[in-house]
Amino acid sequence: MAPFSDRLAEAVCRTATVLCVGIDPRYESLPRSIRDRFPVESLEAVAHAYGAFASRILELVAGRVAVVKPQMAFFEACGPAGLTVLQDLLRQARSLGLLTILDGKRGDIASTATAYADAALGGVTIAGRTFPVWDADALTINPYLGADAVEPFLVSARRAGRGTFVLVRTSNPGSGVFQELDCHGRPLYRHVAEAVANWSAAQPGASGLGDVGLVVGATHPAELAELRQACPNVWFLVPGYGAQGGGAAEALLARRPDGLGALVNSSRGVTFPFDPEEPEWEKAIRLALNRGIADLPT
Amino acid sequence: MAPFSDRLAEAVCRTATVLCVGIDPRYESLPRSIRDRFPVESLEAVAHAYGAFASRILELVAGRVAVVKPQMAFFEACGPAGLTVLQDLLRQARSLGLLTILDGKRGDIASTATAYADAALGGVTIAGRTFPVWDADALTINPYLGADAVEPFLVSARRAGRGTFVLVRTSNPGSGVFQELDCHGRPLYRHVAEAVANWSAAQPGASGLGDVGLVVGATHPAELAELRQACPNVWFLVPGYGAQGGGAAEALLARRPDGLGALVNSSRGVTFPFDPEEPEWEKAIRLALNRGIADLPT
Repeated sequence: MAPFSDRLAEAVCRTATVLCVGIDPRYESLPRSIRDRFPVESLEAVAHAYGAFASRILELVAGRVAVVKPQMAFFEACGPAGLTVLQDLLRQARSLGLLTILDGKRGDIASTATAYADAALGGVTIAGRTFPVWDADALTINPYLGADAVEPFLVSARRAGRGTFVLVRTSNPGSGVFQELDCHGRPLYRHVAEAVANWSAAQPGASGLGDVGLVVGATHPAELAELRQACPNVWFLVPGYGAQGGGAAEALLARRPDGLGALVNSSRGVTFPFDPEEPEWEKAIRLALNRGIADLPT
Repeated sequence: MAPFSDRLAEAVCRTATVLCVGIDPRYESLPRSIRDRFPVESLEAVAHAYGAFASRILELVAGRVAVVKPQMAFFEACGPAGLTVLQDLLRQARSLGLLTILDGKRGDIASTATAYADAALGGVTIAGRTFPVWDADALTINPYLGADAVEPFLVSARRAGRGTFVLVRTSNPGSGVFQELDCHGRPLYRHVAEAVANWSAAQPGASGLGDVGLVVGATHPAELAELRQACPNVWFLVPGYGAQGGGAAEALLARRPDGLGALVNSSRGVTFPFDPEEPEWEKAIRLALNRGIADLPT
């Protein structure tokens, strides 16, 4: 498999948009027609409702955007049945030509980190046999445990031409409480970003961008611009656009002059732009998708 | 359900040991007899091998220790089948009177954090109905995303009499790269520990200890002693004892003078003290368990 950064650059150029569609299903927001098909009798029923809805989202966005980003928490909240649905959705996304970022924000040490990474990305090897599990193209990871905890994720990802996105400056209002602490004259998140830039530089793609990206919220435009300056060869995954309050102009600060380097995520804005009672919910999604693509060009 | 801190204090007093048994199954280390029953034909087979082994561990440690700590990564690495096995093991642990800490190191924001927490702890509520998912007594969580990302976990846990353990100073050799960065004259992990002490103080149990614990590795004895001084009313979950190099004397620095406040985890040391070809592997586990309990009194 070609390196993640090259596959991502190709897909972003082809679709000419930096929009990434987040798959964050919530039962209460699903269209009435889907909820009527899958009433809340069990978590299996909820998982199938998520599957029916998200599967339709994948069909609607295929060919229009480079990447979709399923949020693992909502599938995990349905137990094993939810994770079976997640597995099916990731398989469907691949078959539709979409790249996938699994938003798991995983973090652990040594062989435990490898277990998470192998499961999310290239597959788990046991007694010499490799089995795909989630088989995503990239995984979001949490850096708090330190460099030797991040590195097993990078090794696992590279072995399979996959990528990682390291949390640096998250989109939530209270993210600064630790991320902005001043450490030797620079905030903590700048130290993490510097580590990411070094990891990313170890295997640059054809565009110069590496396979280790970072996460920075559109809700922090000044930091976004500053990080783009400091880390010219790092992919940025930008949450917080739309429903969380970040605008397109802010989010586009993540783009490099060549139009690459940014993925701006919209979850609710693209996938839930309708009232649950609205029968023409697919039309509302198409319109929101068109608007998102127009607002977020390469 | 009684508050987590009180249930934990009762169980630690009753068993008179601070030993916590980690459930981190690795196929290559399993007894030959179990591997022969479940050859590596699929991840389902691997998951069932983990289930057979871990189920026996639970029977062997029940009544002897207060808590077991399954490592979610190894079950997740077997896909949905692995998570079904995890669910069964957590149920079995409860029925044997063991408390459970789910080691997931989860972290996310807002309703996503709530989804992880509800799944791990008190159950997921959809359309007014609550469904248990992993149904553990406590969950490990990662603080990097900030206070407003940790708080949904605390709210969810408290609603159900459950607990959380926040990563502060992890046991891996490279943990200091961010955790030890000097921020306003104190290392980052001290800032996190201070936040944990405040959260924990919001709902003290009968012993004074609260329902928000922290994780500090036995591999950092000086920091462990310093944190025990600074956070007298916080439960400490201490990995890194045994196989990772921390000794009993170091780990016991986590105890308060009243014998409470510490949970010292051993995974490989108690659950894999045998060669895979050894037919009397259960005897080896019994001996290792007796030794661990003797070395780690309240």
